[in-house]
Amino acid sequence: MKLPAIVVNFKIYERGVSKEGLKTAKCLEEKAEDLGISLAIAVNAIDLRMFAEELEIPVFLQHMDSVGFGAHTGHICAEMLRDTGAYGVLLNHSEKRMLLADLSAAINRAKKHNLKTLVCADTVESSRGVAALGPDYLAVEPPELIGGDISVSKARPEVVSGTVEAVAKISPDIPVLCGAGVKTGEDVKRAIELGAKGVLVASGVVKAKDPAKALEELARGLP
Amino acid sequence: MKLPAIVVNFKIYERGVSKEGLKTAKCLEEKAEDLGISLAIAVNAIDLRMFAEELEIPVFLQHMDSVGFGAHTGHICAEMLRDTGAYGVLLNHSEKRMLLADLSAAINRAKKHNLKTLVCADTVESSRGVAALGPDYLAVEPPELIGGDISVSKARPEVVSGTVEAVAKISPDIPVLCGAGVKTGEDVKRAIELGAKGVLVASGVVKAKDPAKALEELARGLP
Amino acid sequence: MKLPAIVVNFKIYERGVSKEGLKTAKCLEEKAEDLGISLAIAVNAIDLRMFAEELEIPVFLQHMDSVGFGAHTGHICAEMLRDTGAYGVLLNHSEKRMLLADLSAAINRAKKHNLKTLVCADTVESSRGVAALGPDYLAVEPPELIGGDISVSKARPEVVSGTVEAVAKISPDIPVLCGAGVKTGEDVKRAIELGAKGVLVASGVVKAKDPAKALEELARGLP
Amino acid sequence: MKLPAIVVNFKIYERGVSKEGLKTAKCLEEKAEDLGISLAIAVNAIDLRMFAEELEIPVFLQHMDSVGFGAHTGHICAEMLRDTGAYGVLLNHSEKRMLLADLSAAINRAKKHNLKTLVCADTVESSRGVAALGPDYLAVEPPELIGGDISVSKARPEVVSGTVEAVAKISPDIPVLCGAGVKTGEDVKRAIELGAKGVLVASGVVKAKDPAKALEELARGLP
Repeated sequence: MKLPAIVVNFKIYERGVSKEGLKTAKCLEEKAEDLGISLAIAVNAIDLRMFAEELEIPVFLQHMDSVGFGAHTGHICAEMLRDTGAYGVLLNHSEKRMLLADLSAAINRAKKHNLKTLVCADTVESSRGVAALGPDYLAVEPPELIGGDISVSKARPEVVSGTVEAVAKISPDIPVLCGAGVKTGEDVKRAIELGAKGVLVASGVVKAKDPAKALEELARGLP
Repeated sequence: MKLPAIVVNFKIYERGVSKEGLKTAKCLEEKAEDLGISLAIAVNAIDLRMFAEELEIPVFLQHMDSVGFGAHTGHICAEMLRDTGAYGVLLNHSEKRMLLADLSAAINRAKKHNLKTLVCADTVESSRGVAALGPDYLAVEPPELIGGDISVSKARPEVVSGTVEAVAKISPDIPVLCGAGVKTGEDVKRAIELGAKGVLVASGVVKAKDPAKALEELARGLP
Repeated sequence: MKLPAIVVNFKIYERGVSKEGLKTAKCLEEKAEDLGISLAIAVNAIDLRMFAEELEIPVFLQHMDSVGFGAHTGHICAEMLRDTGAYGVLLNHSEKRMLLADLSAAINRAKKHNLKTLVCADTVESSRGVAALGPDYLAVEPPELIGGDISVSKARPEVVSGTVEAVAKISPDIPVLCGAGVKTGEDVKRAIELGAKGVLVASGVVKAKDPAKALEELARGLP
Repeated sequence: MKLPAIVVNFKIYERGVSKEGLKTAKCLEEKAEDLGISLAIAVNAIDLRMFAEELEIPVFLQHMDSVGFGAHTGHICAEMLRDTGAYGVLLNHSEKRMLLADLSAAINRAKKHNLKTLVCADTVESSRGVAALGPDYLAVEPPELIGGDISVSKARPEVVSGTVEAVAKISPDIPVLCGAGVKTGEDVKRAIELGAKGVLVASGVVKAKDPAKALEELARGLP
């Protein structure tokens, strides 16, 4: 995933799943190509194969468990993603938080199976813990701002800069994205100025009247 | 799903997922047709579409969440299964136990979206609680016998007959399956004699040297 | 616990814990005696011994695990409550929801050790599941009304009457309490008229300017 | 807590709770004084006050939640421990694992309320994550060895030395303890040689025929 990047979490919004979701994704992919920006998306497990087969951009699965093959009804393991075309996994999103031990194991398993990990954290402090587990990318998102109208880079810039600084102390090679309330080019510009290498967005794009236009607006803030 | 039925939980055994899993499933489907028995399977979320599209037998998803469309990263909701061809959902398996409140909500959501529910319970007592939530099918499985060599119908027949009786008091229309350690035709025969309307199996078939042959052996116990 | 009863959940409000909490409890106990009403409280684990030793009214613990003695760091088992003076346990509160299997096991363990169980449910449907597990008392509380200003008996009377009816079909001997937003004598009166045998309250009493006066107001609604 | 230290987790073993548990604790305290070693224990929530009041040695609570005062039925917050005499809290034990976000918040809240934190990790990798959250002490325990007969310092010395090294890179000031299967003075000696500043033990002492004697045996390995 080229940086800076815009990662769109499709969650399980009606417009983010199934054929409708794929249509949205293709439309975003096309726009990203036009704009020459780096775009990736995160999709649900049911639609992963379909999305990954039909898209060129990196596709992350929204959650993966820490186990391997075996007697684990209802779980998803890294080995199962090998032939799906998935680029990686989003882990520890505030809507799907993980036990520290499981998160650590899931990151290690993802690595072993060549899946990139984009791991979420909710505060500067927990970002340190996440960074020390060695993810490929870290996204900081204050839960109270998720889905809201004020972006983290505006409302709590110290969370973005603080996380960038804290993560750099643990491991200078982990790019930090930020998310929560990110909707305008100005929000993205501030995030980049604060040291972020991109943004993690969801409702601002997927629930926008015109997702491609919303992406274009965000892209205005990229350097 | 015609009763009595044999439901095979593919878990995430190596041979139960991806193309290898689909091959196993087709092979079982063919055998079931030859034998004229009622067969269903439970698969993981990643492979659900692929399995449901390629198979005629009922395909259950191994777990579903209790939410609807929305900001629920990493979740699966009933609405997402509408166009997958899924017959229903397995819920509350001992490897993916659910909060009572969530299980209740998931059963109601499944009903609303025409998905059949096969809900697991671990004891006679908890079977009463599950039955009162109104599932389409109930499967009782003592966790300590799952994956083992002695079948529930042999080792703890009172769990099967006790559950059949307890469930009938709550709601006489809910068929009870039983599982854990079921491997032979004799195990199935006993289960049916104890009042079960079928069996829920996993390793006994999916990890057998020859899954189709293992299914044939189980089928010998059906009336 | 004599019925109808008012059960006050002290949660971990500042005024509901430690010596301050005990003072509040004693004050409520005295008022209940004056009024001749049946009062019980639910307290946290740290303060259980202290409260149970100093009070005459029934004291429930706010949560108990489903295990027995053993290697269960950070858990609480029924055997541990034997010498505390606890009257029983509150289980499955919406702020501490339980897996169906664990709830079932915890209820059975509580019975074995002569602890009364007051088990919460969030809807009419899940009340059926709870009732079938055989608790001593059931309290229905729609989570969205908890801590609010409109009582369940006013805002959603059908939840109270529906639960009373549903529980009676499963087991006519389980008294139903109701909770969420209950603050006035009128709220209590309606609850009783709808078939409840009491109320489960928290903030309305514990966070009231004058808890004893708040209790007195509620008591006005008792028959 | 003076280092090196022996920390005894009383879990909820029959002999580790209530009056019997307190008797065991006093007996260990007396022995530790005789031997001139540093001893601490971890107890359950129900007995915390009683133990902390009657003992001189540091007493840890076995688990604490990440919330503060408020509507959190069945939870325990740092503020509630202020007047109990607790020295600190054990967090993230493999029998009570925590979400990374909650663990981070709990550590911060403990600090704010002057409670020492002893945080468990299951592997070298997850120890890095724990260390980055800033605990006062870190205890590494491979879950598969807990309660067993072979000590971590013998069976998997690389876990102890690897954790000591990994933690030192994150923060050189966090002392590392190790646990799982530790039963002899030789086990303790090896642990210290591998860089540990003490051990976390449970069954080896609490379930020993003579706990004081078992402690004496362990103490032989201290420098």
